[in-house]
Amino acid sequence: MDILAVGTVALDSIETPFGSVERALGGSAMYITLAARHLTRKVCLVAAVGGDFPDAYVKILESAGIDLSGLEIHEEDRTFAWSGRYHKDLNERDTLFTDLNVLETFKPEIPSSQRTSRIVCLGNLDPSIQIGVLDQMESPDFVILDTMNYWINKTPEMLRVVLGRIDCLTVNDSEARELTGESNLVRAAQKIRDMGPDVLVIKKGEHGAFLFAGESVFILPAFPLEHILDPTGAGDAFMGGFAGFLAQNRSISLDALKKAVVYGSAVASFTVEKFGPDRLLSLDSNEIENRVQMFHDLTSIPQSVVQDL
Amino acid sequence: MDILAVGTVALDSIETPFGSVERALGGSAMYITLAARHLTRKVCLVAAVGGDFPDAYVKILESAGIDLSGLEIHEEDRTFAWSGRYHKDLNERDTLFTDLNVLETFKPEIPSSQRTSRIVCLGNLDPSIQIGVLDQMESPDFVILDTMNYWINKTPEMLRVVLGRIDCLTVNDSEARELTGESNLVRAAQKIRDMGPDVLVIKKGEHGAFLFAGESVFILPAFPLEHILDPTGAGDAFMGGFAGFLAQNRSISLDALKKAVVYGSAVASFTVEKFGPDRLLSLDSNEIENRVQMFHDLTSIPQSVVQDL
Repeated sequence: MDILAVGTVALDSIETPFGSVERALGGSAMYITLAARHLTRKVCLVAAVGGDFPDAYVKILESAGIDLSGLEIHEEDRTFAWSGRYHKDLNERDTLFTDLNVLETFKPEIPSSQRTSRIVCLGNLDPSIQIGVLDQMESPDFVILDTMNYWINKTPEMLRVVLGRIDCLTVNDSEARELTGESNLVRAAQKIRDMGPDVLVIKKGEHGAFLFAGESVFILPAFPLEHILDPTGAGDAFMGGFAGFLAQNRSISLDALKKAVVYGSAVASFTVEKFGPDRLLSLDSNEIENRVQMFHDLTSIPQSVVQDL
Repeated sequence: MDILAVGTVALDSIETPFGSVERALGGSAMYITLAARHLTRKVCLVAAVGGDFPDAYVKILESAGIDLSGLEIHEEDRTFAWSGRYHKDLNERDTLFTDLNVLETFKPEIPSSQRTSRIVCLGNLDPSIQIGVLDQMESPDFVILDTMNYWINKTPEMLRVVLGRIDCLTVNDSEARELTGESNLVRAAQKIRDMGPDVLVIKKGEHGAFLFAGESVFILPAFPLEHILDPTGAGDAFMGGFAGFLAQNRSISLDALKKAVVYGSAVASFTVEKFGPDRLLSLDSNEIENRVQMFHDLTSIPQSVVQDL
C-alpha cells in the first residue's frame, strides 16, 4: 500500500449559513483517503462503523478505489455520529453532539497486507489508539499524525509518547499554541519539533499553512475562495493530498514536502466548496493541477522589474 | 520629488507586553517617509506639529534625509498625541487617548516644488483633507491612500469621493470588511475596486497581504517573526516601503506592484522589532535586501521533485 489511513468514518450532521446535511458521509479517514486517492493509487482505510452505516456509503468509498479490507462493521453497534453548526464566520463552530458509539471500543487491527504501507496517516483519535497502530506497522517511510485540543488537554502524556514516534505532525494554529503554551507560532513550532516530529505543518485555515522541515520554513497562503459552503474535513483532506503527493512522487525531500503542502492545500480548497465529501467525489486530476498552477501564479515573486515610467 | 507623504506626525505613548514609551516620535507621515527613504531618495513630508514638538525629533527626520519644507510648526498649538495599550495578543489594542490638538485645524498646504511629486501617499486623515491635497497636485503617476474604520463610519460620502480619485487603497482586512459589508475578502476586494482604486492591498497583519491589480491576485505571507515588540506603524511603514520600491524602479507594472508588496512587507517586518521608529532608523539596505531574499525562500514553490524513496 502507498497510504494507510487510520481514523474515523462518521455520520455528520452539519449546518452552515449556506445549508445543512443530515447523517452525511464523514470522518477523518474518509476525507484523508478520498483526498489521497486523487494523487496515488493504493490507498487503504482502517476504521470502524456500526450496523446503521448505509451500504450506499460503503459503495461510494469502494467506487473511489479505496481498499476497505480494514473497515470493521460492528453490526450490533452504531456509527460514530457528529453534529456541528458553523457561525457566519466559518472559522467558528459549535458542536451540537458527539456520539462516540462504535469508537468507544475501537481497537484498530491492521490487515497483514497493509502493515508494510509506506505512508501512515493517523487521523485524530485517542493517542493510545494511534500508538497501537504504530505497534503493528513494519517500518513505514513516513508517519503523519493529526490530533486536537481534546487530546492535548485530556491525555497529554500519551500524546507526548506518540509525538516521539512520528515523522510529521499536522495541527491547526490554536492547537499548536495549546500544545506548547506559546502564542508565537515560530516559537511554538520549535517546541513541537523538540517533542519529536522533524516535520511540522501548522494549518491556519483561510490564512494558509506553515511547513517546518529541517532548517527550512515554507509558507503557503490559502487559495482565495469566493464561496465556501462547508469547512468540515478541510484539515483531513489537506493531510490526504499532502500524503498522496509524497506517495506518488516517492520522495520526502524538502522540495517534495513543500510541493505536498501545495497539493494538500489545493485538495482542501476544493473540499470546502460543497458539503461533506461531495466535491472530493466529483474532483478530477486536471482540476487539481490547474489549482496548483494557480497557487504558483498567486504566490510567485517576480525576479526583476522593467521600468515603465 | 519621488514621494510626497501627507499624514500625521505625532507623539505616541505606547504600552505593549514588552515595554512602553512616552511621547515617542510617531504618526503616519513619519512612518511612511522613514520607510520610503530606504528605497528612494527624494522623499518629502507634509504634516503639522505644535510648539511642544521636540527639536530632537525634527533633527531625526532631517538626518534621515526627509525634505521637511512642508512640515508646519504651529508654535501656539500642541502636537497630535495618541496613546495605546496592546494586549498579549498584539493584534488587539485599546486606545487610551487621542488628543487631536493641531490636527483639528490642519489644512495641508503643499509646497509648490512638491506639487509635481510622482507618487503621493495619503496617510490616514479626514477624507476631505485628503481631497484637498489631491486638488493641489499636478497629475501624479500614482496616488496611494490609507484610511480607517473611523472615517468609514463617520464620513462615508467623502471617503467615496476620495476613493474615486486614487490609484491604490491600502487597508487592513477588518477595514475592507467594514467598508463593503462583505465578510469574504475576495468579494470585498471586488466591491472596493468598483468604488475606484484599480489597485488594492489588503493587509492582514501576521497573516500577510493580498494585492489585487488588473485581473491578478498576489498573496504574500507576513515574515514569520519570533519577537514583535511594538506593532505601531507597521501599516504605514508598509505603505512607505511599497511606494519607495515603485518610485525607485520607475514602474507601476503588475510585477513592480508585486515586488513592492514584498519590499513593503520587509520594511514593516523590521519596524515591529523595536518600539516606535527605532528599527526604521537603524535599518540599512543590505538588511532589507536580505529579508526580501528570505521572502523568496519562504514562499517559492519548487517546480519539480526528485524521487528519493
